[in-house]
Amino acid sequence: MSYWKAAQPGDPVVAIDTPALVLDLDAFERNLQRMADALRGRNVRLRAHAKSHKCPEIALRQVALGAVGICCQKVGEAAVFVEAGIGDILVTNQVMGDAKLRRLAPLARKARIGVLADHPQQVQALAAAAQAHAVTLDVYAEVNVGANRCGVAPGDEAVQLARQIAGSAGLRFAGLQCYHGPAQHLRSPQQRAAAIKEAIAAARMTRDAIEACGIAVERVTGAGTGTFLHERDSGVFNELQAGSYIFLDRDYGDNERGEGDVPFEHALFVRTTVMSRATPQRAIVDAGLKASSVDSGMPAVWQRPDLRYVKAADEHGVLATADAAAVSLGDVLMLVPGHCDPTVNLYDELVCVRGDSVEALWPVAARGALL
Amino acid sequence: MSYWKAAQPGDPVVAIDTPALVLDLDAFERNLQRMADALRGRNVRLRAHAKSHKCPEIALRQVALGAVGICCQKVGEAAVFVEAGIGDILVTNQVMGDAKLRRLAPLARKARIGVLADHPQQVQALAAAAQAHAVTLDVYAEVNVGANRCGVAPGDEAVQLARQIAGSAGLRFAGLQCYHGPAQHLRSPQQRAAAIKEAIAAARMTRDAIEACGIAVERVTGAGTGTFLHERDSGVFNELQAGSYIFLDRDYGDNERGEGDVPFEHALFVRTTVMSRATPQRAIVDAGLKASSVDSGMPAVWQRPDLRYVKAADEHGVLATADAAAVSLGDVLMLVPGHCDPTVNLYDELVCVRGDSVEALWPVAARGALL
Repeated sequence: MSYWKAAQPGDPVVAIDTPALVLDLDAFERNLQRMADALRGRNVRLRAHAKSHKCPEIALRQVALGAVGICCQKVGEAAVFVEAGIGDILVTNQVMGDAKLRRLAPLARKARIGVLADHPQQVQALAAAAQAHAVTLDVYAEVNVGANRCGVAPGDEAVQLARQIAGSAGLRFAGLQCYHGPAQHLRSPQQRAAAIKEAIAAARMTRDAIEACGIAVERVTGAGTGTFLHERDSGVFNELQAGSYIFLDRDYGDNERGEGDVPFEHALFVRTTVMSRATPQRAIVDAGLKASSVDSGMPAVWQRPDLRYVKAADEHGVLATADAAAVSLGDVLMLVPGHCDPTVNLYDELVCVRGDSVEALWPVAARGALL
Repeated sequence: MSYWKAAQPGDPVVAIDTPALVLDLDAFERNLQRMADALRGRNVRLRAHAKSHKCPEIALRQVALGAVGICCQKVGEAAVFVEAGIGDILVTNQVMGDAKLRRLAPLARKARIGVLADHPQQVQALAAAAQAHAVTLDVYAEVNVGANRCGVAPGDEAVQLARQIAGSAGLRFAGLQCYHGPAQHLRSPQQRAAAIKEAIAAARMTRDAIEACGIAVERVTGAGTGTFLHERDSGVFNELQAGSYIFLDRDYGDNERGEGDVPFEHALFVRTTVMSRATPQRAIVDAGLKASSVDSGMPAVWQRPDLRYVKAADEHGVLATADAAAVSLGDVLMLVPGHCDPTVNLYDELVCVRGDSVEALWPVAARGALL
């Protein structure tokens, strides 16, 4: 439709219209490199989570730096990344319904495709779809290692599910999905370590129980940006699914950093303009909750400790400031989004900047891929 | 990109893939009619707020039933609606920056275009843009009538601003924007009535003060779905900006209904599938916070008082249920979104259903129009 892009490659940064989603390429590339360095020489590979970025340009850079491929949450996302040339994709989710399975299975002709199961019905449906399309799907048993969302219980339930997968024509039992989401944002390093210690124990016990039945557990996969060093060093996990490390949102930035933690830096920003300054105590910016998702709290105002983003409406953000002179009508500010994943999902492109210039626009090609 | 639509016109409703944004056309049309009935024969016109739907098909139906046009929040939205043939558009927002003004002003060649101001700098910039493009812009002084967001103080400040607008070449002083957002969701009818009573008093005083200076105040515009009957009956407001009435989200549904309030009904739903049922106490659906915005709280499960949507992750919703047999893997449920506006903004189209059939797909043409 007839609306415009916030900038074009070659534009000076100061000319970027607002609100816009800005990627600081230098910071982003440092984050990519930090993750590659953290995994170099370890017996653990990265399968970067693409639900954070939904952007093939980013996935290709992650693979170029050593990632085996990506994971994503939706069949529609997987289709976008297959089309972009990513050869190894794990849908870290249960895929229910014929409409989705009809679309998932053919992707396995162009890429290695994995998917999760936590119920016998899902395994039956996946096997039927794989056979109908003459493909093989990698299926992982999802184990509840503490997140209390999806996943069978560790131990016997997982053994039964693994047996069923391993015995199903068209399916390859690929291993265990052991992701502990809530642990990622526990604020203290000690809390995160304790939660993942339990997850590792549950994963190890389950892996050993399955292998005791003569079924190989090739992969134990999971982890996120908040905890991946623990899984890396576990001796149990051999694949990591961190995604947010490339951007580092405000919520991750609020985690207390433990000794040895990787110093990822904020690389994703919402550029915004002060659009109303009707009273000295209040400044209103043009980025509200349709520009920066508030599910994990308000954005932070980058490098402006004197300003606090206190309230979001659809298209307005309210800043509080004690100092009436701190901000003027028309000032441009950078926000650090509270949660990167749903914020990226609000935009059609990332405005990629280096220094003072716009270097590229990268399409958020899988934005809105809900199916 | 290569992902799919949730349905096609003519499909049975049961075949709609999930998550999908579903519009119940019968309920939607009843809501449209209820609003038209509520304003018939009154000296108050409707300028429907299109930020809720971002959908030309809906705007055209609102105008066909008597709305003078629409309001919206962004220049990019206005452009979409001008292109769709809407002839009278008010951007209920301050528009800052040359990039935006260069795009706003030319729209006034094809439609009547209004915009707000709450600062002398904005009026100067609007006048310069209007003159540069040889157009006339309707400018409304935004008055803070209780929302404490944008807007000058009632009385003298507004008089000064009106004088400046009225004296600016290229601008027409069109009246006052007096919207009280927070009042819309005060739960009791008495609270809403009290808040709007104050807003009406502030609007009346300000209007009278401006007219005492010999400047006509053609319009006093504002109101939303939660309070519009008060503004309708005020004798001060002569234009209403309700938007959510067409959909009625969970947050509006939670308002206690006062005597005489219009019985709008839920018409917008997120269709979702139970994708994991790994334990008896928990069911996981495939609609998370990328499918139903949680800024105004969790969605409700439609016509299922036994099920509660308790937690949203990116692509997962956690349902709690006391009864293990209440819901099965693969069951399809309908969610009533917590907040319609940002939920609609997550989708590329509305799947419009009537009875058991999909009747149409309506593009959310202004989705993501942030500039």
